[in-house]
Amino acid sequence: MTPLPKPTSSPPTEEELLARLSRVQEKISTRGYDCYVSFDPVNIYYLTNFANYVHERPFILIIPPRGAPTMLAPVLELTHVKTKARCPLEYLTYYEFPAPDGENWNDIYPGAFPADPLVGIEGALPSAIQETTPGKTIIDDLIDEVRLVKTEYEIARSVHACDILNEGHRKLLEICRSGVLEVTVFSEVTTLMMMKIISDIPDANYIVTKPLAGVSPPSTSHDPHFVLTPFIAMETGGPHVSGVAGQIDGYGMEIERSFFIETVPEAARRPFDVMMQARERAFEMCVPGTVFSDIDRETRRIFIEAGYEDNLLHRTGHGLGITGHEAPYLALGDDRAAEPGMIVSIEPGIYIEGLGGFRHSDSVLITEDGPVSLTEAPDRLEDLVVTD
Amino acid sequence: MTPLPKPTSSPPTEEELLARLSRVQEKISTRGYDCYVSFDPVNIYYLTNFANYVHERPFILIIPPRGAPTMLAPVLELTHVKTKARCPLEYLTYYEFPAPDGENWNDIYPGAFPADPLVGIEGALPSAIQETTPGKTIIDDLIDEVRLVKTEYEIARSVHACDILNEGHRKLLEICRSGVLEVTVFSEVTTLMMMKIISDIPDANYIVTKPLAGVSPPSTSHDPHFVLTPFIAMETGGPHVSGVAGQIDGYGMEIERSFFIETVPEAARRPFDVMMQARERAFEMCVPGTVFSDIDRETRRIFIEAGYEDNLLHRTGHGLGITGHEAPYLALGDDRAAEPGMIVSIEPGIYIEGLGGFRHSDSVLITEDGPVSLTEAPDRLEDLVVTD
Repeated sequence: MTPLPKPTSSPPTEEELLARLSRVQEKISTRGYDCYVSFDPVNIYYLTNFANYVHERPFILIIPPRGAPTMLAPVLELTHVKTKARCPLEYLTYYEFPAPDGENWNDIYPGAFPADPLVGIEGALPSAIQETTPGKTIIDDLIDEVRLVKTEYEIARSVHACDILNEGHRKLLEICRSGVLEVTVFSEVTTLMMMKIISDIPDANYIVTKPLAGVSPPSTSHDPHFVLTPFIAMETGGPHVSGVAGQIDGYGMEIERSFFIETVPEAARRPFDVMMQARERAFEMCVPGTVFSDIDRETRRIFIEAGYEDNLLHRTGHGLGITGHEAPYLALGDDRAAEPGMIVSIEPGIYIEGLGGFRHSDSVLITEDGPVSLTEAPDRLEDLVVTD
Repeated sequence: MTPLPKPTSSPPTEEELLARLSRVQEKISTRGYDCYVSFDPVNIYYLTNFANYVHERPFILIIPPRGAPTMLAPVLELTHVKTKARCPLEYLTYYEFPAPDGENWNDIYPGAFPADPLVGIEGALPSAIQETTPGKTIIDDLIDEVRLVKTEYEIARSVHACDILNEGHRKLLEICRSGVLEVTVFSEVTTLMMMKIISDIPDANYIVTKPLAGVSPPSTSHDPHFVLTPFIAMETGGPHVSGVAGQIDGYGMEIERSFFIETVPEAARRPFDVMMQARERAFEMCVPGTVFSDIDRETRRIFIEAGYEDNLLHRTGHGLGITGHEAPYLALGDDRAAEPGMIVSIEPGIYIEGLGGFRHSDSVLITEDGPVSLTEAPDRLEDLVVTD
């Protein structure tokens, strides 16, 4: 078995960022674009290490086929960009939004392009920016493609993020007892993780740091997706579904478990077992070369054959990286093949109203030798019954 | 002087939401659109009370000129939409992202439109959605226009949000002493505000609840905009610049103060005074009928005549509402006139490296009788020197 890569919590080097840029620029050249425009803060962060909130003052990265990208940014934020960006950039600035005629971002932006250009753009680019882009635009999410396979540095950051989530999840199982409120779980677990982030990463960027922790008790765990309900209480029995997730200084991973307090209702045993079979099969298949839709087809087959077709609400998993949800997708519609260096969640689940949700999720690195889970918690039913 | 409206923390009624929709649909009709498409989670929240995070599974609201809008949403989230939305909606769902051919969101989405439609869209609409929209699209931020003037309900929610921020800011001034770290301020003030939110609003939506608190000591306060720096310490002297802001169950307001610990450096007195003159002038001008760019021109004139032209980094203020930054803008480029029911920040500021930042910000309601500040904290120099 492949040993887990060593964690790191240091910021990316210029070399790391230039290697990412060079993979992006290779695609820009190959596809014949004169420029590529990135607005998605996730992609700008990936290429520069500068993170921003989207608001009315836009930050836009204009990437030529070679050489340094140009960052269009408001004057107010220029020192922030320069402090955080760890790669060479050219700058174009505008004073404010809105500014007097001729001095707005959209007056200055077209000047960043050559004459009559062919411009690749993100599918997420706001239509107002697309409209202002000179020449012809083509939607082409090529930075997302580059992000599919993680660099060694990204893997080491992901391991570090998972270490923090693992610690948070241990705490969560330690404090979840009958009667405990979700707000207590949220507060104690996120505080613990935040303290660890602060001590590990003195310069952590809090724009991309959002640790989350929640638990759905059996009365709501049939309805997946994390929505904090502060006053909901843990109950004897289960399945409860835990979720410890979120970005840790830019790297978003997750760990989730279906677990029980004190006792296991008889009716919960079979769906738990079927979920474990689907999960085991998904892990087995998560090796280089497997087509992701085949994994989802296979877990669905296991659930459907066991009679749970109406209890399926989502795909088997999704990619993880600088966001907590990204390509590739372990879903019927994703016919990409698994490659070493991809990190995905494996989380086949079923949801039975009146009984609860059955889902474990792990953040899993695909390697030449097979899947390596970066998250760690008990997974067997007998190890997931918490008691005092 | 106009009395402060009474605060409320209850969710919007169906009547409130239908009144907002009707203002939007009036514009849709007047401008001759067959439909309007909204993707911005802020606008969807404004019209429905349902808030979402943007991720790869889109939520799209298709609004006809009359009748109920159609919400395109993933199956996984349907119960969340139905639980939170407080107005009549039609639903169109898709199973997953990605799904097999023919079952993706973009296969289903065009079915929501009449034949060959003229469609109004947001400037923030992702280009990938615009490309999939049938007929002809026209960028027209008409929901943003409707949001400019607040309803009575919105004003009452904003008063409630400001009450919480005011309490947070009192706490902030109470604990800011020389040597105290920003992380302590952040943690104590946000915890206090969060506890108040939890007790006032049992069903608060934590997707749109993000209370923030920070302080920049004089060594960094010349560089505005909130970026949490956990280990930076408060210092004797000043100006420190505080910021207590963020969304409180959907309503985003702010309060900020330049303040001092123990002593006031002599060099800080004049820029503080000039900032106060500019601020007083901005308040005076903030009455119905004033053109916003004139307010910014006037505060700039005061700063420039006092010799601070090089110390200007931003406009005089911005609108507030369900976001913490929105139109209208007290900026040279915004020639809208002030109207009763608008809520704006008034925060003219100057920034002097080596000395610090000089900026107070308040959240101010424009009424027939003039501006009414919804935020409350000392503003005079002599009241802003904290000591034990």
